[in-house]
Amino acid sequence: MGIKIIGTGSYLPSEVEKNEDFIQQEFLNEDGTPFAQETGVIIEKFKAITGIGERRYASKELNASDLAFYAAEKAIANANIDPETIDYIIVAHNFGDVRHGTVQSDMLPSLASRVKHLLCIKNPKCIAYDLIFGCPGWVEGMIQAHAFIRSGIAKRCMVIGAETLSRVVDKFDRDSMIFSDGAGATIIEATDEKNGILAHESASYTTEEAGYLYFGNSYHPDACQKTRFIKMHGRKIYEFALSKVPAAMKECLDKSGKKIDDVKKIFLHQANEKMDEAIAKRFFRLYKKQVPEGVMPMNIHKLGNSSVATIPTLLDMVRHDQIERQAINKGDVIIFASVGAGMNINALIYEV
Amino acid sequence: MGIKIIGTGSYLPSEVEKNEDFIQQEFLNEDGTPFAQETGVIIEKFKAITGIGERRYASKELNASDLAFYAAEKAIANANIDPETIDYIIVAHNFGDVRHGTVQSDMLPSLASRVKHLLCIKNPKCIAYDLIFGCPGWVEGMIQAHAFIRSGIAKRCMVIGAETLSRVVDKFDRDSMIFSDGAGATIIEATDEKNGILAHESASYTTEEAGYLYFGNSYHPDACQKTRFIKMHGRKIYEFALSKVPAAMKECLDKSGKKIDDVKKIFLHQANEKMDEAIAKRFFRLYKKQVPEGVMPMNIHKLGNSSVATIPTLLDMVRHDQIERQAINKGDVIIFASVGAGMNINALIYEV
Repeated sequence: MGIKIIGTGSYLPSEVEKNEDFIQQEFLNEDGTPFAQETGVIIEKFKAITGIGERRYASKELNASDLAFYAAEKAIANANIDPETIDYIIVAHNFGDVRHGTVQSDMLPSLASRVKHLLCIKNPKCIAYDLIFGCPGWVEGMIQAHAFIRSGIAKRCMVIGAETLSRVVDKFDRDSMIFSDGAGATIIEATDEKNGILAHESASYTTEEAGYLYFGNSYHPDACQKTRFIKMHGRKIYEFALSKVPAAMKECLDKSGKKIDDVKKIFLHQANEKMDEAIAKRFFRLYKKQVPEGVMPMNIHKLGNSSVATIPTLLDMVRHDQIERQAINKGDVIIFASVGAGMNINALIYEV
Repeated sequence: MGIKIIGTGSYLPSEVEKNEDFIQQEFLNEDGTPFAQETGVIIEKFKAITGIGERRYASKELNASDLAFYAAEKAIANANIDPETIDYIIVAHNFGDVRHGTVQSDMLPSLASRVKHLLCIKNPKCIAYDLIFGCPGWVEGMIQAHAFIRSGIAKRCMVIGAETLSRVVDKFDRDSMIFSDGAGATIIEATDEKNGILAHESASYTTEEAGYLYFGNSYHPDACQKTRFIKMHGRKIYEFALSKVPAAMKECLDKSGKKIDDVKKIFLHQANEKMDEAIAKRFFRLYKKQVPEGVMPMNIHKLGNSSVATIPTLLDMVRHDQIERQAINKGDVIIFASVGAGMNINALIYEV
């Protein structure tokens, strides 16, 4: 039995927020003091490191579950299946539905229930649940769906990553420019072929690392101390990711039985361009290889970091020829890998 | 291979909130008008239907993940295992950590990451994630852990249900008296025996039912319209549960190959005493049987409805002789069943 991707879909939110749209914003240090540099300089440095030139925000009337629904609709159309035949709808996110202008996370009912409701799927045996696993939530959902299929309790699963980080950013925090909104959906199923998902790896680092991404107060000293926002220790995350992700990818690839030269594409969580390039470089160096030209499709320049949504969105864009000079061909070996809050790491080896 | 429970633990929050503590509270209808009856009469009727006489609230400095940690510590001690040997920590909840006096849900990092952090588990291969599946989250976590073990990616898993509903109730809503705080943890593992988890069933009803439990505004007309609370359409839930849960339990029992006379205990989600009794009655009636004396342990009278925490807490209390005239013996067949937000339903057949 193989477990294969039969459809993908993604939703790009409509509001384009460009770097220059932040030019009037005052950025503060963690202690509330202003940055020594002017905002224009901060934005330039930000772009040089992260690669982000613009990002997408969901329009005010939409929530994360709506974005998830739009991506799911497209994945179902792409797979050309009857939605009533889906056994699981798994929605990975970190903040639930946060309505524009409010601060509460709504997961009652779960976002997966909302998606199933919007899709008008009636089959009660289609189980809908949400998964909280930081940015690696979509990859982990794929691993869970894989386990359900392997254990015989499912044949066809839809895994969605959806997030509206624009609703939980502290605008006084320079890191707010990293985060964006989005959703990507993937449908996998059991097939008679031998390829598909070949191996997977997950890890949770929760000693000191548990605090690297956290829900914290605004950097503005006059802000309400009861309202919290997504916060991160960027430097620590960078070092953590570099020390752990390449090794996890190698462990996973070696377990799959495939060789480094078989690897045709790497889909990394779009967290930060410099970090992703450093991860790829270190990964290939573990095999004494250079990073092959074009092995790593990226969309962070235009879409920012939408957490759980980055990889399924990127995969969908490559499958639909929306990234220049990027394509996936039959027989290609692909690595998906992610890192994020938890701190969690995972990787998946997939043969097309 | 069998999959067996090797340890349980639970945490009962320290603050006892009695029914009479609500006597000064003004209760309002959904449209903001006062109830025709006096609060004392409302409380009496409430008790007659739900069975709840008192409930537990977490002390101010504790959050859901802390309750989960205390329950987990006890389950590990009860199982007498090295915590570093746990492959998965799955925490089911609905609202994350809601700090006392605030309205935001915090799941960054996940509650499972926090529990693992507090337990000082270092093994990165112990995967920590949160599961959102309404009140049936703990049972669903057991089903997921079961799938991981069956598929060969885990041997030993801890499944926790933890919730602080006291932080998300609208005090003007009579239903606020139902909800409580708590946590229960269970450790399961693969064994050479044939018994343990024999069968399971899950279902998600998401057409009209998706709105039966929801996050809504206070019934008080002057309350902030941006702050929302746990809300339910109790009558609809009651009718839904009665029409769906007994049938799901029967489907599950029949699938397990066990007979109705083998069933020695039923652990139902402690949502409402009258509803639970009606579910049990209808379940046995499907086999043309009366409900056997003592088949259904209950703790709702003293603990209220703590959502995902009710069943693992009840199981732990029965295993540790904390419920009068209730005990589990080797060879007993047990049914776990739950219903809640989603709307989700599930059942699990377990042979001791």
